[in-house]
Amino acid sequence: MARSGRRPGNQDTRESILAAARTGFAEKGYDKASIRAIASDAGVDPALVHHYFGTKEKLFLAVMNAPINPAELVPQALAGPREQAGERLVRMALGVWDSPAGTAALAVFRSALSNEWTARLLRDFVVTQVLRRAVHEMAFDPAEADLRAALVATQIAGTIMARYVLKIEPLASADIDVLAAALGPNVQRFLTDPMPEVFKRD
Amino acid sequence: MARSGRRPGNQDTRESILAAARTGFAEKGYDKASIRAIASDAGVDPALVHHYFGTKEKLFLAVMNAPINPAELVPQALAGPREQAGERLVRMALGVWDSPAGTAALAVFRSALSNEWTARLLRDFVVTQVLRRAVHEMAFDPAEADLRAALVATQIAGTIMARYVLKIEPLASADIDVLAAALGPNVQRFLTDPMPEVFKRD
Repeated sequence: MARSGRRPGNQDTRESILAAARTGFAEKGYDKASIRAIASDAGVDPALVHHYFGTKEKLFLAVMNAPINPAELVPQALAGPREQAGERLVRMALGVWDSPAGTAALAVFRSALSNEWTARLLRDFVVTQVLRRAVHEMAFDPAEADLRAALVATQIAGTIMARYVLKIEPLASADIDVLAAALGPNVQRFLTDPMPEVFKRD
Repeated sequence: MARSGRRPGNQDTRESILAAARTGFAEKGYDKASIRAIASDAGVDPALVHHYFGTKEKLFLAVMNAPINPAELVPQALAGPREQAGERLVRMALGVWDSPAGTAALAVFRSALSNEWTARLLRDFVVTQVLRRAVHEMAFDPAEADLRAALVATQIAGTIMARYVLKIEPLASADIDVLAAALGPNVQRFLTDPMPEVFKRD
């Protein structure tokens, strides 16, 4: 990278770290990228990365310009009475995209659809790191948890797409209560209902 | 539009009609765009548009580079025993995107997500013209059909996104039979199950 002659200020250091992180996450995926390697690529001490961004998770969210932290919100939504977990997850997702943070959240979502590496990172982070772990912690058959998490992702992603990207009516203007009642039980089935025909238990 | 000096051949006429149709559909939406106005913008007789493209529906599919015609496939999938309509719709959608036509279908899908006018046209055509009408014909309370169609769209669009765009495992590699069993009942609920809590019937 061409460097200007002047001594880098805080903003430059922050930007160098972000650029190295963007490349590191894109090349190695969320799981394999390390703070140490990112710091080395940015030409700074790893301690400085922690100083500016905290954890790897927070560095990733900064790279993605994510306005919210799914690693906090998803487990919160899934905690509590098991039978309403699906509805709570729908309310949480719609709450984010309906909020002022929704514009930035939608930008990340759109980017994942046109950009291979954003897609990979969102998949590695949101589904693998966050959703899958949360579903595992709900104490299902571990052999089922990964597919259940992916199925939940289909309904949540499809809802964001239909409501905020395609703006399909009457869904786009529907009240969150209506959508929680419409979508909640479907997400709940993916999360907790026995699906022997899917998992071919004997 | 700048015109070359040579007399337009068939290919030029076809391209002029497609260009005019692209603009006409984008500005007016599928429903309000007319063959007559498109022909006029292209500087040709409406009969020539019919000659090259057939119906407005087929002209639209040509503009979108759509490899399949949802107006034929969706009603086919929904015809037959009502209780398996959800599963048939899932199998139909996955069948298209798993087939050799899937690459082109995915290109249309991606374009709808990054391009406002493709989004509008897909919504106006696939959901409003095709899916909504097909759901209406399944003889539900007409007051419910539009929301039911939009809900079906969330699950189908989310599945395409998770399987073909984000490639979330184990869903991306799953067999169609597994996904039909996993997703079919959820689509079925949107299509035919009583949802009094959603529609607030008295």
